[in-house]
Amino acid sequence: MSNLQSLETVPGFKIACAQAAIREWEKPRNDIAVIVADAPAAAAGVFTQNKVAASPVAICRKHLKASQGVAKAVLVNAGVANACTGREGRENALACAKQLAETLKTPLDQILLASTGVIGRQLPMTNMKNGIKACIDALGTAQDGDFAKAIMTTDPEPKQASIVLDGLGDVVIAGACKGSGMIAPNMATMLAFILTNAAVSPKALRSALKDVADATFNMVTVDGDTSTNDSLFIMASGLTGGAALDKASGKRYDKFVAGLYEVCMSLSRQIAIGGEGATKLVVVRVTGADKRHDAELAARTIAESPLVKTAMFGNDPNWGRIMMALGRSGAKVEEDKVSLRLCGKRMFKDGKPVDFDAAELSGLMKAKEVELEVELGLGKAKALMLTCDFSYDYVKINADYTT
Amino acid sequence: MSNLQSLETVPGFKIACAQAAIREWEKPRNDIAVIVADAPAAAAGVFTQNKVAASPVAICRKHLKASQGVAKAVLVNAGVANACTGREGRENALACAKQLAETLKTPLDQILLASTGVIGRQLPMTNMKNGIKACIDALGTAQDGDFAKAIMTTDPEPKQASIVLDGLGDVVIAGACKGSGMIAPNMATMLAFILTNAAVSPKALRSALKDVADATFNMVTVDGDTSTNDSLFIMASGLTGGAALDKASGKRYDKFVAGLYEVCMSLSRQIAIGGEGATKLVVVRVTGADKRHDAELAARTIAESPLVKTAMFGNDPNWGRIMMALGRSGAKVEEDKVSLRLCGKRMFKDGKPVDFDAAELSGLMKAKEVELEVELGLGKAKALMLTCDFSYDYVKINADYTT
Repeated sequence: MSNLQSLETVPGFKIACAQAAIREWEKPRNDIAVIVADAPAAAAGVFTQNKVAASPVAICRKHLKASQGVAKAVLVNAGVANACTGREGRENALACAKQLAETLKTPLDQILLASTGVIGRQLPMTNMKNGIKACIDALGTAQDGDFAKAIMTTDPEPKQASIVLDGLGDVVIAGACKGSGMIAPNMATMLAFILTNAAVSPKALRSALKDVADATFNMVTVDGDTSTNDSLFIMASGLTGGAALDKASGKRYDKFVAGLYEVCMSLSRQIAIGGEGATKLVVVRVTGADKRHDAELAARTIAESPLVKTAMFGNDPNWGRIMMALGRSGAKVEEDKVSLRLCGKRMFKDGKPVDFDAAELSGLMKAKEVELEVELGLGKAKALMLTCDFSYDYVKINADYTT
Repeated sequence: MSNLQSLETVPGFKIACAQAAIREWEKPRNDIAVIVADAPAAAAGVFTQNKVAASPVAICRKHLKASQGVAKAVLVNAGVANACTGREGRENALACAKQLAETLKTPLDQILLASTGVIGRQLPMTNMKNGIKACIDALGTAQDGDFAKAIMTTDPEPKQASIVLDGLGDVVIAGACKGSGMIAPNMATMLAFILTNAAVSPKALRSALKDVADATFNMVTVDGDTSTNDSLFIMASGLTGGAALDKASGKRYDKFVAGLYEVCMSLSRQIAIGGEGATKLVVVRVTGADKRHDAELAARTIAESPLVKTAMFGNDPNWGRIMMALGRSGAKVEEDKVSLRLCGKRMFKDGKPVDFDAAELSGLMKAKEVELEVELGLGKAKALMLTCDFSYDYVKINADYTT
């Protein structure tokens, strides 16, 4: 995948970032950003399944429904999640959306919102108001990577990915995301924003985003904890012209979806490897499951097992922990048909341990990416999860956060 | 609860321990033990729900069914779990049971087995054979606490509990267990053994054990990982005489069950506080749930959340993480009805944050036991989970184990 373009360069959108001092940062930084479409754009979103959802998530769901998948702008802030903030929090989120709608002279339901930060704190509304104004005044000034940096919290690095689709005119798909742990609830909400100049119908955009999210972002797990604020957005300006892509467009639509998958998978891998305290990317691949649901259950349980994850950190080829996690996953398993491989080396075959060189395998596990393969031998369904190891630093980062 | 008696003093049983060198220990220690009933005793067991169950677990299930809840002896070893060991492992377990049955001149199906240790290694059969013989030769020589020590692996201390039931003759219930993490799969299988001199019918014993296990051991979670070997046994010698207790015995049976609950709850608390790397016991209490299932889901998800557990370790009253875990638990939740308390201090009421003194609360969290209360405000169902915090030492203990 080429990495030539950033969110800031996608035709049909203008971006700005500003310092709103949403919380006390170690040093001054941008913590508010706005993406504005030149003309109302096709838009779709995928949001947290946590029943305790933040106010911006509730507003996005409502607006995307009311607008039938059209959006003019997205406002995002870091520092305060505006989750578990009761009626005051809901009113604050709405006030931000209204300010943006009035300034841009656009219907309220074409405004989308995202927040990431501490749960249970109210947004500092004077700062938000000034920050929104500063962004609008500076629209279009954001340079390559500015947006990705403005939405960071505990992320070690900004996360960006893009693709230019050959043979599909000049279509570019560019994305930026944050999330140090999809899934850690405070400074670690997963937020992702994808922009494209393709012309895509809102309905097809929604369907493509959901399918791709299920195969990418929803397959990332850092610690099994799901944020109250997780949000993935896409906006398509259509500036390439031509008829809007939809499922009837056949191969052209498939090509767009494949490109979207590449961008989302790259961002997902960046999230997993950027997990709190992570030292490596761990890819869990389950094959031969009876049903897709079994494959997912098995892959997720192994990827989230603290004992598997600490073994990955310690370069310990302790395959018993993988069998333990597999057995408790709820997936259909017949022990005598299970085989395991780690870094390509077979450790367990058809229910029996296989001799392997533990020292050699431990050396292979020191790589930046470790693959763990489970063959269930029951059918043809499969699943892939992306996670990271579990280190001292995970505990350190999370043991003392708000106080 | 009085702690006057140990397993070794319960009338009707003889115990012995021996050094079998099942694996290379840092220094020589007992790692095999046998409990033999003077006469075949009423017996019951509760076992792991992990689909990858160790050979001894499979044999116990079969034997308890065939014997209709009667057992003569239990053999337990530490060091090797005999899980994921294929046909050879099954044959080894059976050979141990046969040796014991032949020596004791008892039907094979009256022999129970338990193993704890590394997954995927075969039992060293010469050592096992010699160890079993050494135990039989020394039957009755085990002193107070010897059995509890012989079954330890990474446990920081032996775990024992007992009760003498007033007004129920001279009934004593004594237990010993190991498990540093219910739930950690290697050296940390949960094994628990309860002996009593009460006369109880096998059917009533099974029912009592299952009910009590659901309310005690099954409510302990250290890291959500479930061992392939978890086993809880009870044997009742009936030496107190009189008619065997069963449900028709009314208050006398209830009193026995209450005593069994006390012993199991004490052992469960010892397991949670003795969790790998734990610095404190964390009690998660969920009340006001619509259904019992919701209360359990909520309590378990909060108790297993790495982010909640690291916050407990860091004395960080970061209640947003509790709300996050509650929201993703799958339990029925209405955010506006939820209230939270930590160490008795209210942090969140009816869906809104409450001002509290974070420094004071952080100080209270330094206690050896921290209670976290979630009131859902939806109904009358409740659940309680016992867990521990998540420290640097958890990672350290688990990052390098087999290699």
